[in-house]
Amino acid sequence: MKKLIVSLFFIVSFSVFASEPLPSWHDASSKQALLSFIEKTTTAGSVDFVPNSERIAVFDNDGTLWSEQPIYVQLAFTFDRIKALSSQHPEWKTTQPFQAVLDGDLNTLLASGNEGFLIQLITATHAGISTDAFRETVQAWLKTARHPKTGRLYTEMVYQPMLELLALLESRGYKNYIVSGGGIEFMRPWTEIVYNIPPERVIGSSIKSKFEIVDGEPQIIGLPEMQFIDDKENKPIAIQERIGRRPVIAVGNSDGDLAMLLWTTAGKGPRLGMLIHHTDDVREVAYDRNSSIGRLNKALDQAPLKGWIVVDMKHQWRDIFPADLQQK
Amino acid sequence: MKKLIVSLFFIVSFSVFASEPLPSWHDASSKQALLSFIEKTTTAGSVDFVPNSERIAVFDNDGTLWSEQPIYVQLAFTFDRIKALSSQHPEWKTTQPFQAVLDGDLNTLLASGNEGFLIQLITATHAGISTDAFRETVQAWLKTARHPKTGRLYTEMVYQPMLELLALLESRGYKNYIVSGGGIEFMRPWTEIVYNIPPERVIGSSIKSKFEIVDGEPQIIGLPEMQFIDDKENKPIAIQERIGRRPVIAVGNSDGDLAMLLWTTAGKGPRLGMLIHHTDDVREVAYDRNSSIGRLNKALDQAPLKGWIVVDMKHQWRDIFPADLQQK
Repeated sequence: MKKLIVSLFFIVSFSVFASEPLPSWHDASSKQALLSFIEKTTTAGSVDFVPNSERIAVFDNDGTLWSEQPIYVQLAFTFDRIKALSSQHPEWKTTQPFQAVLDGDLNTLLASGNEGFLIQLITATHAGISTDAFRETVQAWLKTARHPKTGRLYTEMVYQPMLELLALLESRGYKNYIVSGGGIEFMRPWTEIVYNIPPERVIGSSIKSKFEIVDGEPQIIGLPEMQFIDDKENKPIAIQERIGRRPVIAVGNSDGDLAMLLWTTAGKGPRLGMLIHHTDDVREVAYDRNSSIGRLNKALDQAPLKGWIVVDMKHQWRDIFPADLQQK
Repeated sequence: MKKLIVSLFFIVSFSVFASEPLPSWHDASSKQALLSFIEKTTTAGSVDFVPNSERIAVFDNDGTLWSEQPIYVQLAFTFDRIKALSSQHPEWKTTQPFQAVLDGDLNTLLASGNEGFLIQLITATHAGISTDAFRETVQAWLKTARHPKTGRLYTEMVYQPMLELLALLESRGYKNYIVSGGGIEFMRPWTEIVYNIPPERVIGSSIKSKFEIVDGEPQIIGLPEMQFIDDKENKPIAIQERIGRRPVIAVGNSDGDLAMLLWTTAGKGPRLGMLIHHTDDVREVAYDRNSSIGRLNKALDQAPLKGWIVVDMKHQWRDIFPADLQQK
């Protein structure tokens, strides 16, 4: 009963004292749970108060902060790079997996289920180039490449409700981190502009690299070998290695995020786990247990047992993309 | 000439408007160069102004922020752990490198020059334990272990002038990072208290680890295998991987820091490289080109060519340890 009164107080205090928070969220259970958690962990004197330095929130990226359908954005980038680089590699025309990309035969490639293919494509396009030059390549691509279904820039395919949540957390002293299976150097060129998440708070997969002095100029150059795949059990390991504190909040959308949510919410004191459930086949894409991209199966079963918030996108998000907001 | 006037202005403005900065530094060239660099990079309108988000300063730890003689502190910890764990490992009495540690035969061990020995000792004492339990072990050890020469706690063997520099930088919007060859999980339990550097800004060497669920409890457990040795060319690689921005300031004391200083100071715009030169054989230990610990040879040759500050500890530091300050 005391808990209920306290919760009600927080909800009331939010609506009275703050300009409407999370406007793109319907006034449903997920929104209320988020607001009351943020309020109780950041209000001095609250039994669940979390000191500023410990306010760490971790977010998966693909499918959590931006769209991952019909294919991961980084894969679209990789395919475009293969095409752009193919004139320097005539052998790709007759060598898999490059041939499939050049022939636009995506289905054959995905159907092969060959993870080695993906790594070959990544290393062929991400290595042999300095980190500075790679950043410029990503930035140039993002200015022109467009989502195959909506025709929007990929940086417009971010979720408006999540942008609002990131901003609210930041305003309450939380430090937001990305913990993604995506490539760290693919994300950093744009996460600060789009999410207000600086490069030092981006954790992701990476290739090996070497330091060398070229014409008197120190360079860090990518090598054609994977260093770390930031997925599944590697996510909590990367969080420990990189942040060194257990997060207070973890948000994901697939089984690749399960270990990160388990690790986060097993900590002492207040913790919040949240899954974005892609339920809207009109405004976005509906997928979960059987999807080859962003499969949400085991984690969906764990959510009710662990008390994690499951966001039903169709019913709980008033707007999905920033463009939805502008159309009102 | 314009530069000179600007520099003079900064020095004057510091002494007039601020309470005396860096009091443990003699009023010599190093102090003046530091103050004028900090002033010009953090004063709006200065041609060398650096935006807040890009104010990154990286510091080596051993020999730069705290004492590394007669042996690295982490090595002293490791030896004490070998002794504490030896009852569970009767075979260590007759197996190198453990036997040498148990017999107190440090010279034999060091003379062997066998780097594999060091890794064996590290993994035997740092692995097989959860990160939470390891943190508690380090914290307990630091409360009682004492420096063999001074009898002080190791956390009292930090350099007072560097504490002042860290605090000054922090107050001017710089984010201080440690980039050390030392173990990341060995440093984090105390760097926030001693240096005001939080765990997420500690970069160091690490062993591999695994995520597993033990009795329903998610754990991250160290494995007896090195993951990363954060020294030499690996320092700039770690900076890029972890921070994703080129630092503005880099400070070290040995050839292990050379690549980090080269990488930092080759960036565009204002950059500052600094070497701590251990020249004081009375108040500390004098060592450089021929030392097996903290050798400073190639980097010392590079310093004048690159315009790096070389801090002559004997002549430029009024106080070395916090205890010196209290005795006045």
